[in-house]
Amino acid sequence: MPLRGLAKRKNYSLGPTAPMKTFTESIHKQNNNFNNQINSHKTHNWTNVSQNEKLYQYESQIKRNFDNIVPTLKEIARIQHQDNFIDIAQSIAKNNLGIGLPLHILDKSWVKPLDMRALYAWCSFKQHEKLSDDFFENDPLDGATGGSSAKEFEKFMLDCGIHLLDITPCSDGRLAHSVAYVMRIPFSAVRRRSHAGALFDIENTVNRWVKTEHSRYRENTPNEAIRDTRYLKVVTYHFSSVDPLHQGCAAHGSNDELAAKEGSKKLLAFREAVENSFCCGASVDLMLIGLDTDTDSLKIHLSTSDGNIDLEKTISTLEIYNSTINFSKEEAEKEICQIIDRKSSKEQLKGINKFIFKLIVNNISQIDYVKKFYKGSYEDIGHAERFIGVGIGFKEVHLRNLTYFAHLDTVEEGAPDLDVGVKIFKGLNVSKDLPIPVVIRFDYSGKVPGAKERAINDCKRVNNAISIRYKDLVDQGLLHTCLTIRDRDNIHSAHIIGMSFDKKLEEAH
Amino acid sequence: MPLRGLAKRKNYSLGPTAPMKTFTESIHKQNNNFNNQINSHKTHNWTNVSQNEKLYQYESQIKRNFDNIVPTLKEIARIQHQDNFIDIAQSIAKNNLGIGLPLHILDKSWVKPLDMRALYAWCSFKQHEKLSDDFFENDPLDGATGGSSAKEFEKFMLDCGIHLLDITPCSDGRLAHSVAYVMRIPFSAVRRRSHAGALFDIENTVNRWVKTEHSRYRENTPNEAIRDTRYLKVVTYHFSSVDPLHQGCAAHGSNDELAAKEGSKKLLAFREAVENSFCCGASVDLMLIGLDTDTDSLKIHLSTSDGNIDLEKTISTLEIYNSTINFSKEEAEKEICQIIDRKSSKEQLKGINKFIFKLIVNNISQIDYVKKFYKGSYEDIGHAERFIGVGIGFKEVHLRNLTYFAHLDTVEEGAPDLDVGVKIFKGLNVSKDLPIPVVIRFDYSGKVPGAKERAINDCKRVNNAISIRYKDLVDQGLLHTCLTIRDRDNIHSAHIIGMSFDKKLEEAH
Repeated sequence: MPLRGLAKRKNYSLGPTAPMKTFTESIHKQNNNFNNQINSHKTHNWTNVSQNEKLYQYESQIKRNFDNIVPTLKEIARIQHQDNFIDIAQSIAKNNLGIGLPLHILDKSWVKPLDMRALYAWCSFKQHEKLSDDFFENDPLDGATGGSSAKEFEKFMLDCGIHLLDITPCSDGRLAHSVAYVMRIPFSAVRRRSHAGALFDIENTVNRWVKTEHSRYRENTPNEAIRDTRYLKVVTYHFSSVDPLHQGCAAHGSNDELAAKEGSKKLLAFREAVENSFCCGASVDLMLIGLDTDTDSLKIHLSTSDGNIDLEKTISTLEIYNSTINFSKEEAEKEICQIIDRKSSKEQLKGINKFIFKLIVNNISQIDYVKKFYKGSYEDIGHAERFIGVGIGFKEVHLRNLTYFAHLDTVEEGAPDLDVGVKIFKGLNVSKDLPIPVVIRFDYSGKVPGAKERAINDCKRVNNAISIRYKDLVDQGLLHTCLTIRDRDNIHSAHIIGMSFDKKLEEAH
Repeated sequence: MPLRGLAKRKNYSLGPTAPMKTFTESIHKQNNNFNNQINSHKTHNWTNVSQNEKLYQYESQIKRNFDNIVPTLKEIARIQHQDNFIDIAQSIAKNNLGIGLPLHILDKSWVKPLDMRALYAWCSFKQHEKLSDDFFENDPLDGATGGSSAKEFEKFMLDCGIHLLDITPCSDGRLAHSVAYVMRIPFSAVRRRSHAGALFDIENTVNRWVKTEHSRYRENTPNEAIRDTRYLKVVTYHFSSVDPLHQGCAAHGSNDELAAKEGSKKLLAFREAVENSFCCGASVDLMLIGLDTDTDSLKIHLSTSDGNIDLEKTISTLEIYNSTINFSKEEAEKEICQIIDRKSSKEQLKGINKFIFKLIVNNISQIDYVKKFYKGSYEDIGHAERFIGVGIGFKEVHLRNLTYFAHLDTVEEGAPDLDVGVKIFKGLNVSKDLPIPVVIRFDYSGKVPGAKERAINDCKRVNNAISIRYKDLVDQGLLHTCLTIRDRDNIHSAHIIGMSFDKKLEEAH
């Protein structure tokens, strides 16, 4: 069990206790400190400034691609009755968005008003396609399989006694950047499965554990089965320090105490499932983390003396940031190591504590990221996702508030997650007469005969189930879908196999 | 690859070639021979006569329980306005069926005609419950986990170089007895997954393969991973020798040539998936079997010289039966061993051929079973199932034409299988104004925290999806559901958690 030692430390009360109750107060205080430091424009000595610049450039460019859609379509709407409309519209779209528009929609402008909803969805889908192409072709976040960052991180994880890192953040778009930004982990070195309320599927995760063990036994990948390393399951729930009662996790009624409790329950049930179902000391390591969606800082939960997760005692990266902002790199390292395990340098940390050190310093960079580029706290404290992602995949999505994930095999099982997403987008888009863009994705293994065809059929099945479940929205053109597949055995981008305004798909309904 | 040697043998043409084309002719000839022998009342020397008696007793008792429902309800219908109706009705039901009737339905007989549809469904569900209780408590088929038959068979399979036997018959009720009757295999020693057209799920089966390998590596169960044994995947498609063009497999348009071809395609794809996805010589063994649903005889497909499955060349157990009916046990053994691998005794057979010998002699008993108790060919050559089984489980169902299986996690994915079942029952039941009884089942692992609650929720989810998909039938009381769960880690029977005419479930709709 990680962090057992920590719970006994003298200064364990560093993190807020009973988060919900003390939260509003303590965070406001923290934010005040934080704001003072913002004014000082100081950067923490552990912050990776050049990485921050690169990450911001990526984030702002991708979001610009999406956020330019509405102004561009407004421009096009104004000229729909002009001569030579189609050519002019195409050239505006190319210039502003870098994409073309679908001829069969522009073509009808003479007989009825332009279908702006379809155009909006089309543009969202094409921007997603561009993002995906860029991601798999150029590895802009430097996290691809086999790349030096991923290899280095995988080696580091093994040094920490972890052979697989499996993270479940909430489906909420404000956590979509958890891996690549908040924790600064190369995306290919981690298994990410988003679920509403971070409530992951136990049976599915046990299956993944079995697969991982099997490949250790059979292929010595990532290490031999006899090595004493563990599968680390992390749950990342979230809360809002700025508006805790309204902008926390919707799945838990914006109650972060409940969110932590439910996350902990799932983690312990997963461990019990592995321990009860397999012999020979089979077990897993667990970690519960709270993410403040306003500052991107983390609360890493400690362990209780009996090996469970302490719901009250946490290490707060924001407190560490504040208390070490004026420290030299060496002084800060010593302070962090003291907090983790009463050690004086990171070389003295072992196992999971080594990993926690990395998590803290990585997150310090992110705290500075938010400080520098978002004045210490995001403006979009609530939802501001650009599209819903449904299905299995989306390795390419790593930006805050870009995507609401509904990780599912079937709408029948995943409906609760998807319903939350649709509700969010009714507020974000439908209220403005804009449609909900839903990208359906099924990754498949190209090595398995027929898998591609099954992925295509899965897309069509889910598309059909969506058109039944959200019939009212679909009928009004207020929910559009884009069907995509990707071969996970090859590093290439997702392929669009159809959209809801394609003629063929319309007929198939 | 099994049977590689066989394809090269001189007398490989023993089985019918090009089944569809030559079938009608050759089987009629076979049946004529067969009928002559029926008249002679001769039993094959390899037939297990006492087992046949026991199996018949079980089959006729269980089917009587279901088939007495209609006459009993007719009797009750006639007296619904008599004094003391409820007591008399209960006593008739107890006497004839061994079950009570639901008071809240009988209770209404004074104000409106008895809901005979609900009573019919109730009786079907209670008979299923009785069957399930008896099966798990008394092991009437002598096949339970840990029993001597199962242990002996598991040892025998390992001697044949097989560490897991995984059979996919068609969902068709006429194949529901494939394991326990047709092949005479202890049910607990085999993995059975029924699918329409015997078209099993590749990804799901690869997962099962991984789980099997993992338990060999971790727990040396059923044997150590270093032993050179294989996972044997069997597909059992079916055909009708009496009415080949109408009573074959509906999923393949009653075209047995196509059924064999599609089965073979799935098997080869499964092997390729395993070989491509895992290192170190990972592979599986494959077997394609055709089952004649009229005589219960088998056609075991041979292998081609390049390791594929021969779609034309088969070993026919009916031909073997006919040609050895007058042989002594020793002579018959020699003849069968000659046919399998030009050997003169079963001790000389190795690997998969050893298994084929067992399959042939086991099936000889079943041919005599059909000969003795059904005059050589079943009267119900078509569908005559008593209920539909939906979900994951039904280890207790091993009788021909008792259950149409729709093995599924979600109605969304399993709808094609389920639609076939509902269509069959429209003919069988709805046409007679009787409802379709649907038993929903989710087995769960009691060792996994929360698994029972999830199984209950899965039942409710599938029940809800059924009530949406078949709304017209449900609204008219022509489709009733019974929700059941079972802890697969304990040998106890299924529990009913609700039925569609329960008040609570009605409200939840």
